[in-house]
Amino acid sequence: MTEKEKMLAGEIYDCGDPELLQRWHYAKELQLRYNNTDSRNSEELSAILDELLGSHGDNVWISAPFFVDYGENIHIGSHVEINMNCVFLDCNRITIGDNCGIGPGVHIYAVTHPVNPTERLSPNSQFWKSLTAPVTIGNNVWIGGSSVVLPGVTIGDNVTIGAGSVVTKDIPSNSLAVGNPCRVIREV
Amino acid sequence: MTEKEKMLAGEIYDCGDPELLQRWHYAKELQLRYNNTDSRNSEELSAILDELLGSHGDNVWISAPFFVDYGENIHIGSHVEINMNCVFLDCNRITIGDNCGIGPGVHIYAVTHPVNPTERLSPNSQFWKSLTAPVTIGNNVWIGGSSVVLPGVTIGDNVTIGAGSVVTKDIPSNSLAVGNPCRVIREV
Amino acid sequence: MTEKEKMLAGEIYDCGDPELLQRWHYAKELQLRYNNTDSRNSEELSAILDELLGSHGDNVWISAPFFVDYGENIHIGSHVEINMNCVFLDCNRITIGDNCGIGPGVHIYAVTHPVNPTERLSPNSQFWKSLTAPVTIGNNVWIGGSSVVLPGVTIGDNVTIGAGSVVTKDIPSNSLAVGNPCRVIREV
Repeated sequence: MTEKEKMLAGEIYDCGDPELLQRWHYAKELQLRYNNTDSRNSEELSAILDELLGSHGDNVWISAPFFVDYGENIHIGSHVEINMNCVFLDCNRITIGDNCGIGPGVHIYAVTHPVNPTERLSPNSQFWKSLTAPVTIGNNVWIGGSSVVLPGVTIGDNVTIGAGSVVTKDIPSNSLAVGNPCRVIREV
Repeated sequence: MTEKEKMLAGEIYDCGDPELLQRWHYAKELQLRYNNTDSRNSEELSAILDELLGSHGDNVWISAPFFVDYGENIHIGSHVEINMNCVFLDCNRITIGDNCGIGPGVHIYAVTHPVNPTERLSPNSQFWKSLTAPVTIGNNVWIGGSSVVLPGVTIGDNVTIGAGSVVTKDIPSNSLAVGNPCRVIREV
Repeated sequence: MTEKEKMLAGEIYDCGDPELLQRWHYAKELQLRYNNTDSRNSEELSAILDELLGSHGDNVWISAPFFVDYGENIHIGSHVEINMNCVFLDCNRITIGDNCGIGPGVHIYAVTHPVNPTERLSPNSQFWKSLTAPVTIGNNVWIGGSSVVLPGVTIGDNVTIGAGSVVTKDIPSNSLAVGNPCRVIREV
């Protein structure tokens, strides 16, 4: 398996791999261009998003600045708005359904490291050992601003996550959840 | 009523309205210029802030980058410092008194959406239904970095909000409040 | 003592001091250049970091954008990665050991203000009275994304801090700590 295949499979991989680094740098280039483009220049912004994201539906609006690792592992449905200053670490698949809203400053992480410090170090690389897990967000979901979603989390349909939450576990459909750690407080 | 009048009145409005979008894009243009101007060029920075903010007193310093929705609904007193990477969603009035300090990465939201997912969807627009409520911050207030202030919140005079707080309810004058959700821990 | 000497000694100082402001503006200039440089241009990025940081070891990678106060009070060991959108307020020394990883959006503050609002005001300056305290992070430490580390905190060796934590007190070596406020949940 290539390092990229290991990465997407959730196995320990080396993020210093040349193929991975090449895409990473290209994503950074696209990100820098996107974040410095006039918001009225929808043709240019769309062209950059087409190149940056894995896939997306109609009426996707991402307010700059927007920050990613690779971009190509981000898949967004239709009628989705992502507000300013979001950070998506898409070392595994980040999937967002239709009719979703992501508040400003939301961080979604699809990558982690061994919690044990000695297990994190790579004997042959300057980079830490990394592990990934996909993040999946359903339809009609609103994630309040400044929230964090951790690797492996699935958020169901029709969910509202309160601002400033840290989502460490799955959130079932039709629920309102808030806090650090984020807990369901009622059905909606 | 125009969509802008509905927005400022706290009624359901369509943020895809052309008048609103025109100002939004202009604010983004000003924001991008502000965030790329040398910090020593105080003449240019002041000129941009005069155009971006609704009003401001003397000795207002905002460290770039700074991010807003419209800018024109932000009203800041005198002797106020706003640190880097703050996000103000000023779909309703955001008022900051005199002698205030806003830490880095503070988010202030004057806009929200229906919590019920089916009520959020607009039949005739790609955008969600939105609702606004003003945020009012008194004099001599310090909001610690990475805090979030939610719509409708009033923070009194002489208040200190601890770093990383999520302010969901009003905070009375002369108090120290911390946490997620933010609670008063003592008088000052 | 100069204002800079008072600042580094943890005594009340005036951050409007010309010597301090000159370095502050220069750090902002470097920061703006760093944040707009192509990530592949490692020669230019290294040259900027050499000028911006107090000191650093081998294999230090900081993903743009990166935000500081002065930069020169930041001291980083070898084999350290700092992810996107971090904010370091280095009014006192911020020390990071070897083999560390700092997640995206982590804020480290080495500066604070009097909690009592009347004590914050300076009779002769537009700026608040400020106080500093160093932040020290050991070796083999991972600070999860969107965390905040407060002034005076020391984090030991072999520590993992969970994402979205607010670190208000020292964290001993060989521990996993999470939450707001951040508490040790187990040894590692």
